[in-house]
Amino acid sequence: MTQIEIARSGQISEAVKNVAAQEHRTPEFIRKRVATGQIVIPANHFHKNLRPCGIGRELTTKINANIGNSTVASCINAEMEKLNVALKYGADTVMDLSTQGDLATFRKKLLEQCQVPLGTVPIYEIVARYGNDAFTPENILAVIEEQARQGVDYMTLHVGFLREYIPLAQKRKLGVVSRGGALLALWMQTHQKENPFYTAFDEILNICHQYDVTLSLGDALRPGCLADSSDAAQFAELTTLGTLVKRARGAGVQVMVEGPGHVPLNEIRMNMLKERRLCDDAPFYILGPVVTDCAPGYDHFTAGAGGMLGAYYGAAMLCYVTPKEHLGLPNLEDVRAGVVAFKIAAHAADVALKKPNAREKDDAISDARAQFDWEKQFSYAIDSEKARALREEALQESSSPACKNGDYCTMCGPDFCSIRISNKLKNLLE
Amino acid sequence: MTQIEIARSGQISEAVKNVAAQEHRTPEFIRKRVATGQIVIPANHFHKNLRPCGIGRELTTKINANIGNSTVASCINAEMEKLNVALKYGADTVMDLSTQGDLATFRKKLLEQCQVPLGTVPIYEIVARYGNDAFTPENILAVIEEQARQGVDYMTLHVGFLREYIPLAQKRKLGVVSRGGALLALWMQTHQKENPFYTAFDEILNICHQYDVTLSLGDALRPGCLADSSDAAQFAELTTLGTLVKRARGAGVQVMVEGPGHVPLNEIRMNMLKERRLCDDAPFYILGPVVTDCAPGYDHFTAGAGGMLGAYYGAAMLCYVTPKEHLGLPNLEDVRAGVVAFKIAAHAADVALKKPNAREKDDAISDARAQFDWEKQFSYAIDSEKARALREEALQESSSPACKNGDYCTMCGPDFCSIRISNKLKNLLE
Repeated sequence: MTQIEIARSGQISEAVKNVAAQEHRTPEFIRKRVATGQIVIPANHFHKNLRPCGIGRELTTKINANIGNSTVASCINAEMEKLNVALKYGADTVMDLSTQGDLATFRKKLLEQCQVPLGTVPIYEIVARYGNDAFTPENILAVIEEQARQGVDYMTLHVGFLREYIPLAQKRKLGVVSRGGALLALWMQTHQKENPFYTAFDEILNICHQYDVTLSLGDALRPGCLADSSDAAQFAELTTLGTLVKRARGAGVQVMVEGPGHVPLNEIRMNMLKERRLCDDAPFYILGPVVTDCAPGYDHFTAGAGGMLGAYYGAAMLCYVTPKEHLGLPNLEDVRAGVVAFKIAAHAADVALKKPNAREKDDAISDARAQFDWEKQFSYAIDSEKARALREEALQESSSPACKNGDYCTMCGPDFCSIRISNKLKNLLE
Repeated sequence: MTQIEIARSGQISEAVKNVAAQEHRTPEFIRKRVATGQIVIPANHFHKNLRPCGIGRELTTKINANIGNSTVASCINAEMEKLNVALKYGADTVMDLSTQGDLATFRKKLLEQCQVPLGTVPIYEIVARYGNDAFTPENILAVIEEQARQGVDYMTLHVGFLREYIPLAQKRKLGVVSRGGALLALWMQTHQKENPFYTAFDEILNICHQYDVTLSLGDALRPGCLADSSDAAQFAELTTLGTLVKRARGAGVQVMVEGPGHVPLNEIRMNMLKERRLCDDAPFYILGPVVTDCAPGYDHFTAGAGGMLGAYYGAAMLCYVTPKEHLGLPNLEDVRAGVVAFKIAAHAADVALKKPNAREKDDAISDARAQFDWEKQFSYAIDSEKARALREEALQESSSPACKNGDYCTMCGPDFCSIRISNKLKNLLE
């Protein structure tokens, strides 16, 4: 049985128990929402060392880190290092987006190392193995089944991009910016056929059901720039995704929905509410959204800020974006920057939504600030190493290394430190 | 006459003309709002090489960069370099927060180099010159007058922190985190006297009026952590600031209001609207706000994201926060990171608010993306150098330097580049 089926039967699975403990909720709170599909727990029966995690609007916001090589950059070892960095800084799930090399062997290694849910985009392997003109049901199902058997916890499939939506995307500045979506569009147009993932959807659901693979319905028509946001193409696909959510749930398959993309600040709330309505509150897994197009080199920030707001308005999981987005394949340092930015975004949204225990860390670090307890401050920091390194750097640049042990920093020095002065005032008032 | 008086008289000043051109508005649009005080144009008669800029909710969001040494770090030359970096990356105003050394000489040098409005916090010089126990009206007015005569365009003065508010701040986790505010609190409590800036306010207004110094009413009681946000202390001071706005305008003095601080996402809108109401739509100049306390090392991001939302809900100017906030005095690289993060934040808010011409850059860079015109992409990037450097880095790390001249990047390579595939599709459809 899949997690959704166990939950519907009224039983509390081990996974539900674990998620409840992590989230400071009762098992029954989690079970109910897994049963309705508002929470998913991606947990393939064959992913042996998995620590299950719950993804849903009412749980802590999760973040995903993409790794994987491209046809022109990186190797397996480099990608394994990225996995470790992503996990170290707190990625809740990891996706392997590799497009070349011995994909199956790499995925096996990844699954052994990766205690968090692992996601994939099977169309990349279909292309790598059979070429980009061979999207037959046989090829599609073969790759999906093989990946499922290996233990992949969730898969992005662009099932909702129907052939009739192709003309809608032609009105755009940037067309179809999803890699899988673009490949499918070209195939559908060349062959004058419907999306093969859509036509094979029942068989796909069978495989997902067998292994409890969670479906992540891809947004092939996500906007790739502000000019294309919230357009007819995007929402046509989203409407179809809503119908696919129902079919997946009907087949006992867990399902999430993927979302934009590039969206200006003023449209984020509307986008989140629309998905909730059209897709019956299926967990929304968003990529950013990037809130301005003109900051290449800083898209961990443009997308992190958009994701923060997305999570505040109901997104369940944020796919990280690194500083290299729009420029090249991220390296180790980019992975770290992306994960940290999105951990911050997720946490800030959780605090604002008053999720259980979310603000404890903020209060603890604030107490540590009042006490000049630097070690405690570092221990509560989302990136302790960076905080420590920047303080060290400031001390080294200071003309007065005395503050190294002292209760102030180089920003204000002892005479202008507001915390020191506030402490004097407190003594005066007591 | 000050800008507000000229505007009230119905005349269009040179400064108003320039601001109108920058903002793609009519001079009359600007004049009207300068007359009511909804827009300020900080422009001291004695700041000779100033390019005036307008600050107000309906104009493009401005960002300020703080520079200046502390008693334990940095020197004049280092701070002049920071000025240049801040201006290079687009700071709209600069504040000199120096607390030691030959403050007047440094300020003179700064004013000569600085074509954007320069702000100061005179209490730092009062302390540096007379000590922190000599807040007499004579000392206060002497320093303010001297700075005004040098050409300082706007001054932060903590006029609204009344003695009766001290107990309110004692309930906080972090008390008074404003440096000037903490010094004043200690003085008021020690001497059992009212805030000397408040009691000397009419004389201060006289000086500001004489030189057209714009007042920036400091928020001594801004919250320093999420636990302290939107509390009685903060709003007591804000209410007083509202009355001071009226007095300043009555005296023909331009005035802005400073705001928080550390504020969770869910309280930002309320904070912006409250200021607008209590302070009669005086331009709100906010510091961040920082949306989570536990990301030291990344406060350009926590505050940049908060500032983005603040600007979206009506803040007129964002004071940058650098990665070193809470850790030490920012260096050159921190200044760059802070300015860029806040330029992004300001721009994303302006785009969302559909301010005139705001999205032009986004559309242009998106067109350049569709055309693989990398040079054009860099030219529209908020930080062109960083974008170029990251692309170069990715190319160097790539196993296939062929893409250097090609129409794809190392993220997807040629076979998976959605833009290339979309272009093929376009040809097919034509």
